[in-house]
Amino acid sequence: MDQIESDKVPKIHVPQRGFSNILFDEEANLLRMGDKTSSRNFMNVAHSRKFMQTMLIASKCQELVDRGKTASIRELYYQLKHTIPGYKENTFDDQSESDPLIVDLETTLEVLREELHLKADDKGTLIGNIIIEDSGDYIDCSKLGRSGLSIPSIVEHYKFHEVDADYCLVIETGAMFDRLVEEKYPQKNNCIMVSTKGQAARGCRRLVNRLNREKKIPIIMFTDGDPWGYYIYSVLKAGSMALAHESERLGTPKSKFVGMTMSDVVKYELESVTEKLKDVDAKRISELLHYPWFQDKQWVHELKLMESKGIRIEQQALASKSLEFVAEEYLPEKIEKKQLLP
Amino acid sequence: MDQIESDKVPKIHVPQRGFSNILFDEEANLLRMGDKTSSRNFMNVAHSRKFMQTMLIASKCQELVDRGKTASIRELYYQLKHTIPGYKENTFDDQSESDPLIVDLETTLEVLREELHLKADDKGTLIGNIIIEDSGDYIDCSKLGRSGLSIPSIVEHYKFHEVDADYCLVIETGAMFDRLVEEKYPQKNNCIMVSTKGQAARGCRRLVNRLNREKKIPIIMFTDGDPWGYYIYSVLKAGSMALAHESERLGTPKSKFVGMTMSDVVKYELESVTEKLKDVDAKRISELLHYPWFQDKQWVHELKLMESKGIRIEQQALASKSLEFVAEEYLPEKIEKKQLLP
Repeated sequence: MDQIESDKVPKIHVPQRGFSNILFDEEANLLRMGDKTSSRNFMNVAHSRKFMQTMLIASKCQELVDRGKTASIRELYYQLKHTIPGYKENTFDDQSESDPLIVDLETTLEVLREELHLKADDKGTLIGNIIIEDSGDYIDCSKLGRSGLSIPSIVEHYKFHEVDADYCLVIETGAMFDRLVEEKYPQKNNCIMVSTKGQAARGCRRLVNRLNREKKIPIIMFTDGDPWGYYIYSVLKAGSMALAHESERLGTPKSKFVGMTMSDVVKYELESVTEKLKDVDAKRISELLHYPWFQDKQWVHELKLMESKGIRIEQQALASKSLEFVAEEYLPEKIEKKQLLP
Repeated sequence: MDQIESDKVPKIHVPQRGFSNILFDEEANLLRMGDKTSSRNFMNVAHSRKFMQTMLIASKCQELVDRGKTASIRELYYQLKHTIPGYKENTFDDQSESDPLIVDLETTLEVLREELHLKADDKGTLIGNIIIEDSGDYIDCSKLGRSGLSIPSIVEHYKFHEVDADYCLVIETGAMFDRLVEEKYPQKNNCIMVSTKGQAARGCRRLVNRLNREKKIPIIMFTDGDPWGYYIYSVLKAGSMALAHESERLGTPKSKFVGMTMSDVVKYELESVTEKLKDVDAKRISELLHYPWFQDKQWVHELKLMESKGIRIEQQALASKSLEFVAEEYLPEKIEKKQLLP
């Protein structure tokens, strides 16, 4: 507005999001965005379509916030898609045009998309000794049987009331979460449990972040012993490259990792239930070995061990000992003795 | 045992599961298994490995039931995998060996795998005016804020208490479920809502089945307007080919379908937010047109309309009208006027 009123060409400065503008902040243990920006100029014919689109999105987000509504990024696209009157051109031809501009807005305004009232898909379940206030309802998450609370895509509105938990165990697979629910692990170990069901959704990562920052609950993650599980952990801990601008609010740098490790395979004699690495696994290991946030010597050791043994192991392989082994020995022992990776 | 005690060769008769042994029961509107069986003979060298494996699984399931434990099918595999003493042979080399034998057992014994205490992955969320008793906890699903109950992989233990709902709306996408939660659709329309998040998991299908059979709650499904959405509906309604032996307990033949239909595209003038069919979509349509359970004339009409228009439409495309349109006009109007497909 200032630009328009002073007769200047409207222009926005958008932080660059390429790999070259992503830094690993070792002290905070978070991926962060650098300060390189690109400018988007209304009078530049190469920029004007994107400029118009960015303004449409910004204006719709403003409307969502004013009206107290939220929308999925797909709904936003459908809300904005129309043919410009008098032209044959569409505002947007495809969602792949609107999605990156949402990220542009987030980084430019330094807000989470949830604060623009936009939401991602939801995924994940929580169970344990915490009372969460959600839209006026007080939900006692220790009284949800074996089902648990479905973690929504937006958790900004959650208020945490009574919490009594020594830590929060974040679990990669739904099946392992089920196992631990069946073994009454949260009750016996006074912890909250969250299942991410694969890569953690934004709502799930934000919830873990808030539990740690606001309620000082230590976070311990439990994944498969393979490069994909380790990467899921690293995203929960340090943030992701695609969302480096939001690491502060989506990453939880104080998280620790309990397993599965390659050292576990040796210690608990699990060789017979490991699987051979596939080519894609091996490739992924060497990628992880190049990421600055995997340079801790314990992680390098685990990754190199995985590479040299040529094996991976799943959480559920612990069932080869006994169904109860993971809940009664493996986890309590490793957590009590602080045999955790950073 | 009888066979062994009378000095006969142990033999099991397992129902065949090929397409040729799957029938569509028009009267019940369910896929069913025919009565062809294969026999598995302990003394036949081509059968003996599978015979041994089937017995191992049966025995482990017996143990699970006796101990009141459940296990995922992956845990079962890990529990049973070992090298046979004195030989170099493994009981199982891969989970692809144990999974089909679990289905063999289910069909032979005519039980659900959940009754063998085996479980599949969980997925899905429920919200609405129902109190569910789960492992001693009374969960009021109308008091779970905007989060909802996470539907577990096994719901056999659920007890339904007070239910006050005119119908249960089953929704394909998590984002549409979120939209309707935000619009307070369950409160305003006195219904329960379930999101399947894609193809419904077994727990979700069983829950819908039980709500309909035990509590007489009408089921209405709402999916994307594409062959994949229609197939998700048909599985919820009539069962799936892979699990034809369990249709009775996983399928809900009285389900109705509210949309999206191709007729909706015309009626609500949604052409500008449709998408072109891809080759895989077109191929899938012609497959559906061949399934006996899609021969109802309204379904044939919709599928042929999709084919001739060459378009598909997503649930979220309704946002092009307004964010509230789906909750305030589309669904209440179609449901009140019973504009539903069988």
